[in-house]
Amino acid sequence: MRMVDLIQKKREGGALSQEEIEFLISEFVHGKIPDYQMSAFLMAVFFRHMTEKETFYLTRAMEHSGQVMDLSAIEGIKVDKHSTGGVGDKTTIILAPMVAACGVKVAKLSGRGLGHTGGTIDKLEAIPGFRTSLAFEEWVRQVNEIGLAVAGGNEQLVPADKKIYALRDVTATVEEISLIASSIMSKKLASGADAFVLDVKVGSGAFMKTLTDAQALAALMVKIATLSGKKACAFLTNMDLPLGKSVGNALEIIECVETLRGQGPRDLTDICLSLATKMVEYGADISEREAKNRVMERFRNGDALKKFKEFVQAQGGDTAFIDDPLKLIGTVNVRPFYALKGGWIKRMETEEIGKAAMILGAGRETKESRIDPAVGLVLEKKTGDAVKANEVLGSLYYREEKRMEEALGILTRAIKFDTEPAEAPKLILDVVA
Amino acid sequence: MRMVDLIQKKREGGALSQEEIEFLISEFVHGKIPDYQMSAFLMAVFFRHMTEKETFYLTRAMEHSGQVMDLSAIEGIKVDKHSTGGVGDKTTIILAPMVAACGVKVAKLSGRGLGHTGGTIDKLEAIPGFRTSLAFEEWVRQVNEIGLAVAGGNEQLVPADKKIYALRDVTATVEEISLIASSIMSKKLASGADAFVLDVKVGSGAFMKTLTDAQALAALMVKIATLSGKKACAFLTNMDLPLGKSVGNALEIIECVETLRGQGPRDLTDICLSLATKMVEYGADISEREAKNRVMERFRNGDALKKFKEFVQAQGGDTAFIDDPLKLIGTVNVRPFYALKGGWIKRMETEEIGKAAMILGAGRETKESRIDPAVGLVLEKKTGDAVKANEVLGSLYYREEKRMEEALGILTRAIKFDTEPAEAPKLILDVVA
Repeated sequence: MRMVDLIQKKREGGALSQEEIEFLISEFVHGKIPDYQMSAFLMAVFFRHMTEKETFYLTRAMEHSGQVMDLSAIEGIKVDKHSTGGVGDKTTIILAPMVAACGVKVAKLSGRGLGHTGGTIDKLEAIPGFRTSLAFEEWVRQVNEIGLAVAGGNEQLVPADKKIYALRDVTATVEEISLIASSIMSKKLASGADAFVLDVKVGSGAFMKTLTDAQALAALMVKIATLSGKKACAFLTNMDLPLGKSVGNALEIIECVETLRGQGPRDLTDICLSLATKMVEYGADISEREAKNRVMERFRNGDALKKFKEFVQAQGGDTAFIDDPLKLIGTVNVRPFYALKGGWIKRMETEEIGKAAMILGAGRETKESRIDPAVGLVLEKKTGDAVKANEVLGSLYYREEKRMEEALGILTRAIKFDTEPAEAPKLILDVVA
Repeated sequence: MRMVDLIQKKREGGALSQEEIEFLISEFVHGKIPDYQMSAFLMAVFFRHMTEKETFYLTRAMEHSGQVMDLSAIEGIKVDKHSTGGVGDKTTIILAPMVAACGVKVAKLSGRGLGHTGGTIDKLEAIPGFRTSLAFEEWVRQVNEIGLAVAGGNEQLVPADKKIYALRDVTATVEEISLIASSIMSKKLASGADAFVLDVKVGSGAFMKTLTDAQALAALMVKIATLSGKKACAFLTNMDLPLGKSVGNALEIIECVETLRGQGPRDLTDICLSLATKMVEYGADISEREAKNRVMERFRNGDALKKFKEFVQAQGGDTAFIDDPLKLIGTVNVRPFYALKGGWIKRMETEEIGKAAMILGAGRETKESRIDPAVGLVLEKKTGDAVKANEVLGSLYYREEKRMEEALGILTRAIKFDTEPAEAPKLILDVVA
């Protein structure tokens, strides 16, 4: 088998066999296929796409390109959740304790943020003392003891994805559904859970800008999971506006506590309850109605918040902020910003809002950037809300005046007003199962 | 400017500016753009193509990526010829002395063969003592003294093409007209001539399999030359059968002498006279009719053959073979092959015939292969010819029995017979000016 022939086959629109795809991934990971051949192949895939079967073979070949986690030491059905990433997306931190409080184990690996999107691990690290780097045995033991653990990604998993993604990033071959689906699902499958609840973000702050694209990606990922013998479903959720009010690491942790206390923003609360319900349905193997009742009960009676406190303690975090949230922010400058005129918020350029937070220091411009946990922004008004002239729209939490000015400029341009009433957007756009 | 943005622009079907293309080539040649980005770009070009203008900018950027030859030390209009390569194509060796005998200077750089196609330099090296490696000053001096010189390619010319071609070869991005045209024309322009006669081969033994593809390539190359302020035209010639009777280095040199003597095959003689006429028209700046008369006169009166002898002597070759051709072959095995039944030759799979010669040792399977000048094949019958059962079709010149058997098998399958009379194919299919 020669790589040049595989490139040509794909270039001509042919479908690769399982054997050919396994050759491709294995030789690439072992350095026997050079980057320049892989990048030409990836560009051919961009134009010719891959069939469902090819994508499945690719996902499995990638999954097995490195270590695959064995969670058999954890009793019961392990359910994982994955979000494709957005602005203000802190659902893992809320729903993992919700689900664990229902007796379903959550052994979670999470990532860091890049560009306009944040990452769960960065957010958790805003809690003083919180350790996100856990040895495998420690992570498993904690899940068995308290029902949940969230750690940073295992570097030994799916080396094929790391190498391929690094190439796609610099060769304009990111936006191809078969490559996106195989990248996500290979990592999910390798991390060893039995069932997956996927949260595919759609809209101006998400990777998938249209519902049609998001539906195609969701369907493909669910299909891959099914072909791999795993349960899965995907929620398509609205990222045409940030999720919740806060964007910024410590600010989002505070919002998580408020939400677990029952005082969080409606959109964030609803989506966490919906995703948690599905996870409990899978993990406890009960009906959706039973799952919903159980989740609501453990949320309302404070069990979920208690579980969160246990979780923070178990991973070494100082829990003082749970009762005194401002401890998490420390000294930082705060500046409110105002509506210039009255009307309704018609649209929010969510990616721009994420960039404003990044510029303040809440996100990473490049992988090497350092983030500042205390900075970010809080939005008091969102799409669909009526606003009076000079009313407060939100606040910026910042260190440097110059960055604040830049972020404020972006934010002002990102929020679009109308003189006619605008509708509040739908939160869950579709569910693919 | 970032390469990833240029890849994306091309991927989306955009046209790159001159500045962008110059950046692309210059940074690539200087190692600042990695191979993996260039190969993704090339695959995007394969799918999205390049406009005429982009191809022109690319050609000029490649031309100036290394040394550009200055032929001002040679008086008069310098005319170059280029063939896209075929089986039995020895036209340069015949027409260069024809043209020089008409007083038009021919300063030629030629290449070696690869795969099923031969190369002028390999053929000339079949002449004992013949030197193809000439210093620039020596090459220029010889052109000024006797009117022609043929040397191997200058390694300093167009480094961009060397790097890009090496990538295209292993990434399935060879067959794209803008890349083919820019590769050929950048080298032609860098070698410094004022006018170009292009011979684009079409058919089963050529790179361009269809007349439509060949016409598009020819038109694009002529356009590039014109935009560069040079005269050019392209002959589209038939490569659905080998040119002349002989395929193999010494055998082809013998055929060149026969042709210059007026005893060569009709197809080879005709095409050499046609190409030479155009070169003289350009080089002497006279009408086509005057050029034709002059070429015919110097061919018929033996001046062209005399010029050939002068040329061989000037480059150190032993001219004894001109009167005694078999000296060039030495001891080698010869085996005739026969028609199994009577009929007409309907088709020749010309690439296969080239491969048969390569297997005998006349060509290179890889760039590192060594060739044997004495081996090859002679075809007594070609497409359109009537053949009786058991009539000799041709002869194989070989060293090893095993290779002869293999070549004979290929050859037998490559020549297709019919019971109905078949037409002799047209030689010159089109002229693009």
